[in-house]
Amino acid sequence: MTTRVALVCPGKPIRRDRADAVLALAATEFPAVDLAFHPQCFVETGHFAGDDDLRRSAFVEVANGPDIDAVWFAMGGYGACRIAPDALAALDEAASAKTYLGYSDTGILLGGLYRHGIGRPVHGPLAGDIRRKGGEEAIRRVLRFLSGEPAPPPLDTAPTVAFNLMTLAMLAGTELMPDLTGHVVMVEEVAEHLYAVDRLFFHVTQHLRGAAGIRLGRVTAVPENDRPFGMDEVAIAQYWCDRSGIPFLGRADIGHDAANAIVPFGGPPRSLRN
Amino acid sequence: MTTRVALVCPGKPIRRDRADAVLALAATEFPAVDLAFHPQCFVETGHFAGDDDLRRSAFVEVANGPDIDAVWFAMGGYGACRIAPDALAALDEAASAKTYLGYSDTGILLGGLYRHGIGRPVHGPLAGDIRRKGGEEAIRRVLRFLSGEPAPPPLDTAPTVAFNLMTLAMLAGTELMPDLTGHVVMVEEVAEHLYAVDRLFFHVTQHLRGAAGIRLGRVTAVPENDRPFGMDEVAIAQYWCDRSGIPFLGRADIGHDAANAIVPFGGPPRSLRN
Repeated sequence: MTTRVALVCPGKPIRRDRADAVLALAATEFPAVDLAFHPQCFVETGHFAGDDDLRRSAFVEVANGPDIDAVWFAMGGYGACRIAPDALAALDEAASAKTYLGYSDTGILLGGLYRHGIGRPVHGPLAGDIRRKGGEEAIRRVLRFLSGEPAPPPLDTAPTVAFNLMTLAMLAGTELMPDLTGHVVMVEEVAEHLYAVDRLFFHVTQHLRGAAGIRLGRVTAVPENDRPFGMDEVAIAQYWCDRSGIPFLGRADIGHDAANAIVPFGGPPRSLRN
Repeated sequence: MTTRVALVCPGKPIRRDRADAVLALAATEFPAVDLAFHPQCFVETGHFAGDDDLRRSAFVEVANGPDIDAVWFAMGGYGACRIAPDALAALDEAASAKTYLGYSDTGILLGGLYRHGIGRPVHGPLAGDIRRKGGEEAIRRVLRFLSGEPAPPPLDTAPTVAFNLMTLAMLAGTELMPDLTGHVVMVEEVAEHLYAVDRLFFHVTQHLRGAAGIRLGRVTAVPENDRPFGMDEVAIAQYWCDRSGIPFLGRADIGHDAANAIVPFGGPPRSLRN
């Protein structure tokens, strides 16, 4: 049985050579997966893969597409928050039967989908991650998952979500923020100073009262500051968990890298829960 | 009549030569202003001007000091959110009779004070701004204001607040966030990419429903990105104001520079409002 996967770019475009490499890998190793990059993925409009209207309409088209099983975000960057509210409002019943997979900035859409109970949002590598060291393995991980192979067993019994920390901070308190009461919240970050990570933890922990716990993914490419922060990212996470009364549950295997784990929002697939 | 002003550093320390320059200017030109840098201002603990306990206790000491008329934040940086909740809870009646003046990261404390109706929070230059081009004039502006000279007339009739955009984004939805219904909210930013400014506007406008309007201060030291964003900061502010139904009221004379205006939170001093 063929799995039909449509790729769109809610933020920035993917380079065509990287898309071609993903298509080649899939054709060779996953003949039962039918990948289709929407032409919008390659449009360049200033910062974005097309203007807001184009990015939103491409997402809505594939999400509502009756012959599509999964929407895979090809790139992150920035831009999902500009299209998410109107895009979610335009989804129909077909959108609820799908998996949505990505991370980083596309977590804005995953969060909004989860809030509204639409489909199955899943944190996992972007198609564009093929450019990373070990990136082909990240692509295989996604294609195995989309082919029906189960995700690794969850670390916790509570329902789980995973977000980029800045993305979660920007979601917090907005019309797209899901209710994360009772959830384990995994966070990762890239290219932010440790003082900024600390500041984001202040904000996010204030918005996560009632969460079952926080797990810390990798915090990478931290820019060098004019002086050391004096605490590493684990101490930062522990500090703010202590301050807010949210249990700190340790590490999570997520981050802006090729090892970035697949984390289905909410835990095991619904079919196993009933 | 002498105006007694105590200086503390809720985030990073001030360099002693800059503090000395502020003291010398005040002694020469403002003999009726008695400035006292708390020794905490010069402590260095990793990123901070002393650990959380020291920074909090120094702030609480001067805020509750019966012989002090105003608390002037000497430096911003980062760190106010680590001390603000406990610090505000420790304030007594003497704290309500004071002016609190600063901006940037110290806006966390100004916001919390305004939320709780404690004293008179005022957006304005930090003592450390003496290091900037034209910085002596920024210091004179503060010392004239603290000596009793009125702030420039407000641009709007609605009560007004002013914040660094990132600081306001981190305040939003937390226990320190004031109710800004009916307020004009001025925002400025420094050293953030335009895509990050756009993202912050998404977050902040979602939290400012019911505001009377937004005014845009200066957005400076924008790092060069791998591609142009395609919109300037005015277009960004207008876009998100349109999206959220908040009136965009034009520019404000605030920013991370020596021209940074003095903006008393809430508008004209209470004595003039009654």
